[in-house]
Amino acid sequence: MPVYIPHHQYRRRRPISLIALRDFVVGTSDGLTVPFALAAGLSGAVQSNSIIIVAGLAEIVAGTIAMGLGGFLAGQTPVEHYWGEQRRGEVGVEKIPQEAMVEIKNLLESYGISPKARRAVAHDLAKNPKKWVDFMMRFELGLEKPDPRQAFFSGFRIGLSYAIGGLVPLSAYFFSKTPLGGLLYSSLITVTCLLVFGYYKARFTGQEPVKGALTVTGIGILAAGAAYALARLITL
Amino acid sequence: MPVYIPHHQYRRRRPISLIALRDFVVGTSDGLTVPFALAAGLSGAVQSNSIIIVAGLAEIVAGTIAMGLGGFLAGQTPVEHYWGEQRRGEVGVEKIPQEAMVEIKNLLESYGISPKARRAVAHDLAKNPKKWVDFMMRFELGLEKPDPRQAFFSGFRIGLSYAIGGLVPLSAYFFSKTPLGGLLYSSLITVTCLLVFGYYKARFTGQEPVKGALTVTGIGILAAGAAYALARLITL
Repeated sequence: MPVYIPHHQYRRRRPISLIALRDFVVGTSDGLTVPFALAAGLSGAVQSNSIIIVAGLAEIVAGTIAMGLGGFLAGQTPVEHYWGEQRRGEVGVEKIPQEAMVEIKNLLESYGISPKARRAVAHDLAKNPKKWVDFMMRFELGLEKPDPRQAFFSGFRIGLSYAIGGLVPLSAYFFSKTPLGGLLYSSLITVTCLLVFGYYKARFTGQEPVKGALTVTGIGILAAGAAYALARLITL
Repeated sequence: MPVYIPHHQYRRRRPISLIALRDFVVGTSDGLTVPFALAAGLSGAVQSNSIIIVAGLAEIVAGTIAMGLGGFLAGQTPVEHYWGEQRRGEVGVEKIPQEAMVEIKNLLESYGISPKARRAVAHDLAKNPKKWVDFMMRFELGLEKPDPRQAFFSGFRIGLSYAIGGLVPLSAYFFSKTPLGGLLYSSLITVTCLLVFGYYKARFTGQEPVKGALTVTGIGILAAGAAYALARLITL
């Protein structure tokens, strides 16, 4: 039975959407988890909500700046790596073209390309050193020309998602009188958010939704439990 | 004048080292920065070092768990993405080989490969559907077979570097009597570490070392300053 495949399904997306997703996943899950766990830990050690709120807000501000700017800088590394390899490729093609040509042929051979076709490709590339370097960059090193703006947007997404995620668990301490009351409401709100966030995250990335929801929630509970246990242990 | 290029210099590294580097950079810079900023913020709001130490340790434990496990999960996404594309490629090559062949030819054309060589390559690939899919995965999508263990090591590196980085700024509060004394020593130790870490990080990634050192240190000071200002503002 023949199967009809819509063209848009066959034409595959670029991993650029993966980078954005990864940023958002890392940002929001950290944003929900670390301030939740920090507040939970302090709930086991202090008598006043105001210290928890100060510590929580300080953590969110610091995390937003550090993760946003950190993500921005980390996103610049591939840009610099690309141009470094580009220069090296240009030098190689110009100074040791025989070696560079043997590399292309060996690579094509590993995909079952016949000697005749290998020679034809190498011959065509040799006529245009610029295209030759582009071909090596993509085919041999798997590198594509990165978009420098990508790093900026990546940092922005990470920072923003961290701040939004972080205010969720902390909000409970604004509306409760004691740290343990705050911890109760914070746990309820955060576990609900982690379940919902984990579910849709998994659906979006094509993983099993229920498993995804439970994994993300499990990490949050584990981090909060460990922080609470540690805080109790120290203050005993 | 001919230039001698050593072979190891011409043979370029795979971006896998970039992933490890990115993990380490993100982990350590966050590890130094966020606990430093959290402790700095609390120094402006509380009277006792013990609360700062409890909050700092709770943050480090939570951050290590959240970032380590978060990195592990984020590292699994490319593995699943790869196998999804692999299946789609196999279906495409089997069900709509004409379209798949046109894609290969168009791609080779964009690198200046002549019609004759394009046809020869497409002909050779068509003889071996497995190699054909591998060729498309690497050449068209820029995807290489990911190592599933990669995600585990990535998570481990992130978690460990976060914990090590976090204990540096906090250690000052163990050995000082007042929060402001702790803040002074913590700032001295952390700024020194950020300068050294930033310098070697930049050298390692081929960036300008002094600029790299100042950037990383600037982020740390900015995050700590913002957290301190916020804490003072709330507790006034």
